Amino acid sequence: MSNTFGRMFRFTTWGESHGHSLGVVIDGCPAGMKLDQKDIQKDLDRRRPGQSRVTTQRKEADRAEILSGVFEGYTTGSPISIVVKNKDADSSKYEPLRDTFRPGHADFTYYKKWGRRDHRGGGRSSARETLCRVAAGSIAKKILNTIGVSVFGFVDQIENIVFDEKSFNKEEIERNNVRCPDKKTAKLMEDAILKARKDGDSVGGGITILAENVPSGLGEPLYGRLDSDLASALMSINAVKGVEIGAGFDSIAMRGSENNDPLTVSRKKTIFKSNNSGGILGGISTGDPIKVRFAVKPTSSILMEQDTVTTDGKKKKIKVEGRHDPCVATRAVPIGEAMVAIVLVDHWLMSQKDRID
Amino acid sequence: MSNTFGRMFRFTTWGESHGHSLGVVIDGCPAGMKLDQKDIQKDLDRRRPGQSRVTTQRKEADRAEILSGVFEGYTTGSPISIVVKNKDADSSKYEPLRDTFRPGHADFTYYKKWGRRDHRGGGRSSARETLCRVAAGSIAKKILNTIGVSVFGFVDQIENIVFDEKSFNKEEIERNNVRCPDKKTAKLMEDAILKARKDGDSVGGGITILAENVPSGLGEPLYGRLDSDLASALMSINAVKGVEIGAGFDSIAMRGSENNDPLTVSRKKTIFKSNNSGGILGGISTGDPIKVRFAVKPTSSILMEQDTVTTDGKKKKIKVEGRHDPCVATRAVPIGEAMVAIVLVDHWLMSQKDRID
Amino acid sequence: MSNTFGRMFRFTTWGESHGHSLGVVIDGCPAGMKLDQKDIQKDLDRRRPGQSRVTTQRKEADRAEILSGVFEGYTTGSPISIVVKNKDADSSKYEPLRDTFRPGHADFTYYKKWGRRDHRGGGRSSARETLCRVAAGSIAKKILNTIGVSVFGFVDQIENIVFDEKSFNKEEIERNNVRCPDKKTAKLMEDAILKARKDGDSVGGGITILAENVPSGLGEPLYGRLDSDLASALMSINAVKGVEIGAGFDSIAMRGSENNDPLTVSRKKTIFKSNNSGGILGGISTGDPIKVRFAVKPTSSILMEQDTVTTDGKKKKIKVEGRHDPCVATRAVPIGEAMVAIVLVDHWLMSQKDRID
Amino acid sequence: MSNTFGRMFRFTTWGESHGHSLGVVIDGCPAGMKLDQKDIQKDLDRRRPGQSRVTTQRKEADRAEILSGVFEGYTTGSPISIVVKNKDADSSKYEPLRDTFRPGHADFTYYKKWGRRDHRGGGRSSARETLCRVAAGSIAKKILNTIGVSVFGFVDQIENIVFDEKSFNKEEIERNNVRCPDKKTAKLMEDAILKARKDGDSVGGGITILAENVPSGLGEPLYGRLDSDLASALMSINAVKGVEIGAGFDSIAMRGSENNDPLTVSRKKTIFKSNNSGGILGGISTGDPIKVRFAVKPTSSILMEQDTVTTDGKKKKIKVEGRHDPCVATRAVPIGEAMVAIVLVDHWLMSQKDRID
Repeated sequence: MSNTFGRMFRFTTWGESHGHSLGVVIDGCPAGMKLDQKDIQKDLDRRRPGQSRVTTQRKEADRAEILSGVFEGYTTGSPISIVVKNKDADSSKYEPLRDTFRPGHADFTYYKKWGRRDHRGGGRSSARETLCRVAAGSIAKKILNTIGVSVFGFVDQIENIVFDEKSFNKEEIERNNVRCPDKKTAKLMEDAILKARKDGDSVGGGITILAENVPSGLGEPLYGRLDSDLASALMSINAVKGVEIGAGFDSIAMRGSENNDPLTVSRKKTIFKSNNSGGILGGISTGDPIKVRFAVKPTSSILMEQDTVTTDGKKKKIKVEGRHDPCVATRAVPIGEAMVAIVLVDHWLMSQKDRID
Repeated sequence: MSNTFGRMFRFTTWGESHGHSLGVVIDGCPAGMKLDQKDIQKDLDRRRPGQSRVTTQRKEADRAEILSGVFEGYTTGSPISIVVKNKDADSSKYEPLRDTFRPGHADFTYYKKWGRRDHRGGGRSSARETLCRVAAGSIAKKILNTIGVSVFGFVDQIENIVFDEKSFNKEEIERNNVRCPDKKTAKLMEDAILKARKDGDSVGGGITILAENVPSGLGEPLYGRLDSDLASALMSINAVKGVEIGAGFDSIAMRGSENNDPLTVSRKKTIFKSNNSGGILGGISTGDPIKVRFAVKPTSSILMEQDTVTTDGKKKKIKVEGRHDPCVATRAVPIGEAMVAIVLVDHWLMSQKDRID
Repeated sequence: MSNTFGRMFRFTTWGESHGHSLGVVIDGCPAGMKLDQKDIQKDLDRRRPGQSRVTTQRKEADRAEILSGVFEGYTTGSPISIVVKNKDADSSKYEPLRDTFRPGHADFTYYKKWGRRDHRGGGRSSARETLCRVAAGSIAKKILNTIGVSVFGFVDQIENIVFDEKSFNKEEIERNNVRCPDKKTAKLMEDAILKARKDGDSVGGGITILAENVPSGLGEPLYGRLDSDLASALMSINAVKGVEIGAGFDSIAMRGSENNDPLTVSRKKTIFKSNNSGGILGGISTGDPIKVRFAVKPTSSILMEQDTVTTDGKKKKIKVEGRHDPCVATRAVPIGEAMVAIVLVDHWLMSQKDRID
Repeated sequence: MSNTFGRMFRFTTWGESHGHSLGVVIDGCPAGMKLDQKDIQKDLDRRRPGQSRVTTQRKEADRAEILSGVFEGYTTGSPISIVVKNKDADSSKYEPLRDTFRPGHADFTYYKKWGRRDHRGGGRSSARETLCRVAAGSIAKKILNTIGVSVFGFVDQIENIVFDEKSFNKEEIERNNVRCPDKKTAKLMEDAILKARKDGDSVGGGITILAENVPSGLGEPLYGRLDSDLASALMSINAVKGVEIGAGFDSIAMRGSENNDPLTVSRKKTIFKSNNSGGILGGISTGDPIKVRFAVKPTSSILMEQDTVTTDGKKKKIKVEGRHDPCVATRAVPIGEAMVAIVLVDHWLMSQKDRID
């Protein structure tokens, strides 16, 4: 019921952090699209642990294999099954956690819900599952390319270092370790992350995703709205605690006269003078760039001692060992892109026959 | 596809602002629960226009009629159809808007999607639809009562007047016009709203919803998560531009050591020492109060002149006439409560057989 | 969960036999289609009780009202709410049935499931609900008309009177009371029905639905197959106990060499030489007429004495009073057409982007 | 959209006949149930090709591997991914079929829908996909065991050899090659199958599935009815052309007085005197055994010459080479059982909170 996302473009994920493998089945990809392993690997590599010094130093190759749905290089309309084998997962170091709830993790809630849990690396609740989303998202992005839509994201805040939109430089995003579109801010952010790691602690981050060239008219009122689906999609990512569209929470302090995006005509086309709406009005795309932002909480696994309790109700001190990301925001960029791309493809497929005329 | 929300507890809404009526069909309400019109009317009255001087002065009785699903005072398991007739809707004053897009409204996007729209009072995109959610929510709340869960909300911010949690007084919420849990702050908020109205302008608001006594273990990883569903549910409300859970966007600037909620034992029960998680970890309820917050943008209908464009692509100045809410946040409180209650019932019904043992 | 049918074209029904009214909400109808009350009334009149001497003599006008989704004569893309008020329902004669299960009816199972039931006229389990399907189906048919697809049905068997395909005359169907495409057979069938009524008994019927000019390529493997959806749709009609496609159960006794439909070329088009497949292979339409057949059991309400039991577990004799159809097959024709039309529209909407190229 | 079946208990399948592997992801299995590979293999072996002389002589081991969702021998509530590798699939002999539509197969419709197809062994449309259903069904059966429900099936007809219910012997079913519950009839059926094979032809079959000890009250009116879901489930199996419940199509020729199942009291329990309803009234289980029957058409792949057409519209003669089942009915028994078991588990999970009291 819950390991599936989407309606017309739909994916189902499975697998645990330290299990045999993780995988995703993508259903609803139109036939006739060229697709090979490299299309998927590219984004997986952007999500991969160990890619830079601000991420965890665990090395995982995360090599995707396509097991079905592609024939002689093209999609066939059949479900696309993608598997990534787990390698070198050392479960022994999780043994002490078998009966202990890690603060900030899903250990306690999984245990309460199911009466048992795979404690190795968080099992199913591990952020390792997000590689499945990234794989599905890479296919969604490829579909979007056929209609000229591009989706990209960047880090806009780390701890209290906030990126200033005025210094936006798209080229810069993938050049620095933090994926911030400004070199100077990126350096400050990197320092903040490394400082947290040195303290055995972690920091949170803010991520913005932009989708450009989205046609107007995508989205379904009133409950499968484009904004509802984006909120659901992004909030489903591990560690995400907030989602906003356009001016978002800042719109509270605005007046209508400031927040409303006035319309005008430019080159014979009706356009909006501003984009506080984030490209969505009434749950439907305006044609302006879709802009969503989400908050990633500081990594729950920290090296500092914390209070916790065991499954049999005894108080305990815990220090989470191992190599963890001091900040997951930088690796969350391709994950956010994936979820946004998937929602857009889903709505594009649903909106093919909005009118008879 | 899109006028339905929920899985096991599911509702479908229909109707336009100036049409014959609006209605909601609730499917999945268990049999054997006492239910009468008053249960529904109570919350509808809290949402009703004209209830205080900070809302629109339009008077609408919004009287709910139950047409099915209840027999001799009890629910039967059959779908519950509720209808509210539209009264006195004066559509003539909307005639000038037939061919003109109101900034901040869904006029443009509905037109782009469907090639036509019911321009009278915004038609289907009107916030009048939310009375259907409130009706469905009142049933959800009644179901939750049977397991001891209570859901309530309040306004925490109007424009830049921010409520301070330290002065929280639950009793105060429904005593003042703004639904703020502190009398003094409520007064300042009311002033801000009235000031905006006097200026022919509008302001936004922030709303917090709390669900108390929620059992741990509700929620489904990974895509029908409790937090995803709450985000989707709240973002689907008209004018909402952001949703956050627990510490939300503030968690970005926190360190893990501060944000993680440590566990301890109290009266032989495992509890959390803090609730930055907002009662949800890994998409599943912790047992702590669920805390969500959402941002309502300033009302789009303002009396000031704005730039816009007509359906045939001509620039135009527009002043939206009529009696509009200078701030919809106060009336959004029962709407937010309804959506949260519905999500909780839905998950409670889904989680009945999480285990075989 | 269960009062809704369809995915892209989706309807939800509500209401009880002797309640205030019954209704249906249709979601997913494309915008821009002309629609008025008459489009719906036409098929409702074909389903109406009291239309001929082989049906029940109860007179019910069953007048449909469109409450939403149509603006200035055209669909808008918003949900279409249709209501039919119940008139003259005399519930008093059902009083003796309050605590007694009628054999063949859903009384026992509803009671076991929900612990209570609306006993008046069968409440929600009454075939009166099918008027909602017929209303939704009339809209589906109108959409299908825009792409040249027509759906019609006829009675092919009453008790042991079997219609012979060789005497098929389409014009005849709506000319006789039984809706059989052969005048002579229709007379025999009518006699069989009237004989059963005279005996205080009832008879069953077989109904064939044909959909002509359906484009090839509609349908989704493997679980939302066109044939699966048709089976589900028709089996959901009250009193239906069997569904078959094309040669159906007769194909058991056939050999592959006889049952396979060979392909050939005619006027430069690939066609099938026969249609044992009923227009569906692998769950997808072939382009040949879709042919489905379903079995309607004899009406459960009969005037003869039967053994039964009361809710408190006492044996009892029962004679069901009132004016009941001695055979529901003739009125089931428009219901079957409606369900088939709805499934076809649903699949047509889903198949708009099967390919990218 | 279409490779997934079920609501609360839900599975998704992927893979092609001659691809790398086939697999199924089962979502919604409650936690805490013992599960190992053998539970699944048992039924897979009953479906396996080459198991007796009436099936295809192709040998496929069809060994299932569980990749996720089971931890230390117990289900965890996480999705269960099962994979079966394809071995020894010799695709070269399918090369002549690359551009030729096989009569009776889905070749033509897949090509029309998607503009391309994996022609090797039928690709996705191959009945090889049913091993995924059987794997999912073996888990469903295990869940049903915990509440005492058992599901089994048998062949009731091959060509025109019809099994007579009076000679029913449950023990016999798995003892003979045909899975017929009567030794003598089984022999006649086997002869009919071998005769057809000798002729290079094939025959169809009828299969009955029984579910015993099903609690009353399972099922959801009106569209997710137990009978609708069963019809959809069984009709989705390759080669199935008809489904009937209880007396099914025979009820057409019955009168109400004969078809209605009277109620009586036995050992203080309300029971039915007969079971023409097949254990379902109004879409809800009565508590009597659920009895469904489905028709499997004769295998489409026959060794005789048939007329067909190529993808570029040229007439052609075709003889399908290879080792094919002369009758798939015997192997369809565990497939039918699987689908019925899955529907029952799904409804059992959905019906946990039908009442509040």
